[in-house]
Amino acid sequence: MSVKGCTIFGGTQGEWQVLSQKIIAGEGLPLVSHLHVGALEDSAWDHSAWKLRGVISNVRYVEKSERVALVAKQEGLGRPTANYGALLPIKKTQAWWDLTQDERRDIFEDQSKHIEANMKYLPNIARQLYHSRDLGEEFDFLTWFEYRAEDSDMFDEMIQAFRETVEWKYVQREIDFRLLKK
Amino acid sequence: MSVKGCTIFGGTQGEWQVLSQKIIAGEGLPLVSHLHVGALEDSAWDHSAWKLRGVISNVRYVEKSERVALVAKQEGLGRPTANYGALLPIKKTQAWWDLTQDERRDIFEDQSKHIEANMKYLPNIARQLYHSRDLGEEFDFLTWFEYRAEDSDMFDEMIQAFRETVEWKYVQREIDFRLLKK
Repeated sequence: MSVKGCTIFGGTQGEWQVLSQKIIAGEGLPLVSHLHVGALEDSAWDHSAWKLRGVISNVRYVEKSERVALVAKQEGLGRPTANYGALLPIKKTQAWWDLTQDERRDIFEDQSKHIEANMKYLPNIARQLYHSRDLGEEFDFLTWFEYRAEDSDMFDEMIQAFRETVEWKYVQREIDFRLLKK
Repeated sequence: MSVKGCTIFGGTQGEWQVLSQKIIAGEGLPLVSHLHVGALEDSAWDHSAWKLRGVISNVRYVEKSERVALVAKQEGLGRPTANYGALLPIKKTQAWWDLTQDERRDIFEDQSKHIEANMKYLPNIARQLYHSRDLGEEFDFLTWFEYRAEDSDMFDEMIQAFRETVEWKYVQREIDFRLLKK
């Protein structure tokens, strides 16, 4: 059956050059010089040092009025001028996953303003979320971003703000990859 | 990485005898006489006619007050006297998955009383939900139930009520297996 998603391969080859790879929380991954973003069942790159898989699933927290606003403002991946990228694989604590839907939504938006805060960086920062947890992967999410060189400071600001939220207190593992498309 | 879940194998062997296998909506599956419920990555049963995989994920709609009530009232799988079972693999329409979280919750509980309606069948009807959609499986969920012989009519009533809800209008494929544990 077909499911949309990706496998991100870390190694010595790939269309994205790794400019930096930094541990934010928890355990790291072996340092690599390049990433390749392939299809979910891509095995041609299995010689890579490591791979991370994720699927594009249904939205988990966004409400209707928010989605209308997001769709109106956001732009897709692959914009020719947006040759800077970032990959932030994230694993949240068991305490997060043990929360009920209303408790997670409360932390996600009411306390952390996840959607509202990120709205102001659209359309400059394009994003895609891949879900990994239910695949048995070592991270829960792969968050992928693309932006222009001149928006690098804006991206830093956005990520810094996220790391100061209540939601981020539930992050137990995060690695920060900054990327340049060749 | 470890993720909790199961693979249900349909074939000529297994601890559950199939009493009936009925198409409720959409395409069926080849008829089988037995089911075996194995671990997620169980390959010892790959000779079976077909298999369905699913994972135990975080709750998607239940709110805190509801979970407190559910946990207080429900009993687990594997009760010795609950040797009747049912498997209902379900696939919902794309229209369902395109809804936002608040729209789905509204249909799930406010319009269809999914949680409230099922509360009254606890603890007699034990249940476990497995998520399959993000694994690329042909069904979105595997819903599994266990009950005593004398609660069979209660189970029929519960399932019939579900099929009359607004939520069920989003079901595009469902098969109804009734089972007896050997």
